[in-house]
Amino acid sequence: MNNKILKTNAKIVCGASVVGRKEKEGPIGECFDICDTTDKFDQKTWEKAEIEMQKRALTLALEKSGFSENDIGAMFAGDLLNQCIGSAYGLLDFDIPYFGLYGACSTAVEGLMLASLLISGGHFKRCASVASSHFCSAEQQYRTPLEYGGQRSPTAQWTVTGAGAFITEKSETDRGVFITEALPGIVIDKGINDASNMGAAMAPAALDTLLRFFKESKTSPSDYDAIYTGDLGHEGSLILREFMSIEGYDMGEDYFDCGNIIFDREAQDVHSGGSGCGCSAVVLASYILPKLKSGELKNALLIGTGAMMSPSSLKQGLSIPAIAHLIKLEHK
Amino acid sequence: MNNKILKTNAKIVCGASVVGRKEKEGPIGECFDICDTTDKFDQKTWEKAEIEMQKRALTLALEKSGFSENDIGAMFAGDLLNQCIGSAYGLLDFDIPYFGLYGACSTAVEGLMLASLLISGGHFKRCASVASSHFCSAEQQYRTPLEYGGQRSPTAQWTVTGAGAFITEKSETDRGVFITEALPGIVIDKGINDASNMGAAMAPAALDTLLRFFKESKTSPSDYDAIYTGDLGHEGSLILREFMSIEGYDMGEDYFDCGNIIFDREAQDVHSGGSGCGCSAVVLASYILPKLKSGELKNALLIGTGAMMSPSSLKQGLSIPAIAHLIKLEHK
Repeated sequence: MNNKILKTNAKIVCGASVVGRKEKEGPIGECFDICDTTDKFDQKTWEKAEIEMQKRALTLALEKSGFSENDIGAMFAGDLLNQCIGSAYGLLDFDIPYFGLYGACSTAVEGLMLASLLISGGHFKRCASVASSHFCSAEQQYRTPLEYGGQRSPTAQWTVTGAGAFITEKSETDRGVFITEALPGIVIDKGINDASNMGAAMAPAALDTLLRFFKESKTSPSDYDAIYTGDLGHEGSLILREFMSIEGYDMGEDYFDCGNIIFDREAQDVHSGGSGCGCSAVVLASYILPKLKSGELKNALLIGTGAMMSPSSLKQGLSIPAIAHLIKLEHK
Repeated sequence: MNNKILKTNAKIVCGASVVGRKEKEGPIGECFDICDTTDKFDQKTWEKAEIEMQKRALTLALEKSGFSENDIGAMFAGDLLNQCIGSAYGLLDFDIPYFGLYGACSTAVEGLMLASLLISGGHFKRCASVASSHFCSAEQQYRTPLEYGGQRSPTAQWTVTGAGAFITEKSETDRGVFITEALPGIVIDKGINDASNMGAAMAPAALDTLLRFFKESKTSPSDYDAIYTGDLGHEGSLILREFMSIEGYDMGEDYFDCGNIIFDREAQDVHSGGSGCGCSAVVLASYILPKLKSGELKNALLIGTGAMMSPSSLKQGLSIPAIAHLIKLEHK
């Protein structure tokens, strides 16, 4: 029963992305909607900057959709900050019922999944989902304040400064980009305890979800125009590819990781690539969705990956549990 | 649209509660299932103790229900620890798809609400939901380590050491305790910035949800055998009662707060009463549910209340946003 693929039918009306400078300077920088090259978004602290990014992302998504907050039945949101303050404060001005999530970097997909399930179940006509991360707020919370200038290991990833917001709705027509299937992740911990190698910690979760999905759906990677993982980065995506191969699945040339897409790993000195709740959120909003809207991709799988440790749990000798939520996206 | 009461039809099969010493010594101490009077649950740190509590709570709930983890389609869980490690690690051993939540102290109700919605929508036959808090892990994270012996203000609340787990399912019969209606909360911030008075910060959120519920349902407090708020405590529940009265609703003698139920405020020196994700979770599991099962209560409202600030947001001068999720429980 735990392999049950959930059938959904929710249309992604639009996505909106808000990013910082490094993201704007990256390979898909031109795709993003809003950028503040100071990364500060007119705020005095990094936490407030992230809060502001969520606010601007949802404001823009509503503008693009043409709907007002009164048209949205519920919103699903989360981020990496302690007590998820990026979302609680960032979305405070919106008079919309709020479900707070904590899925680490899988949050964007977790939110889209819950929104599409509740829309398909007839509970809401239209939902929003929002997720964010900020390099500077994440560094000081998870590692050290920026001013320390700590060295980074080769497997370390670079937290994306980005917020993505999405509007999903019950389909009025059969045209558009739809979330048609969903497979929620199971928490997996394979004993990795190096916080500078989260790709290795998360790859087994992505593996578990993908294997469950392919077995249950009786499909294989070649049945999809593209497969995207959220933020396994260079290291993690190589591990996933290798482990999938051992299990008999060739991930092929159409498998990508959002953490590899958003930065030029060599030129931008980001070591193993991008990470963070904002990574898959902004890449989906501004890079993957347009490909699905135009029909360049007829279908795609997006696997939101999250590492669920905290600085405290690592200090107490625990390893890193991870999760991977999968949604199937279709152009119709 | 944002006042829409969601109709659900999910049966609460059972609840299980795990508590510490102070809870066991309180007025309803005899009701709880599992207690460790050391508050340590055989662990070396408070965080690991909380992790262990979640594990024991869900293990017991499954035992009581007679179901195995393979019978559970998904679980919804959260806690107050940074990055919600109580849930991520506590439920790691269960091979069940996992949705991580952050609703602060409203998490137990948020989880039950999402479980009942997804069950009613036909996505899952059966779900689990879990929430926890631990006095000692919360003190050192939100305030100061216990060893400091900091003084507490009269409006301060005492975080409950408790974990509650619930199994909900699609009704096979029409007998039992059902979640029949749900109204998700909207984040409300009325400018309270005193972390020692969270009751005052959360009362306006409870007010907002209750007013929306009564207006939309065309009911009033007297239509319910009991109304419970999660953890407004002494101070917050007085504020709610007064504000409801100003709005024309007499909360009457059947309004209670779980934070007032779980401790003897005077004798146990807990100032304004209990709080934390575990508060409403264990009071529901072991005190309210039995009353509904026996028919002593034919119906009840439970409003999970949560204060969504973090130590960082308070230090940066922000006030406390709060949320209140409402579910209607019925004996059938």
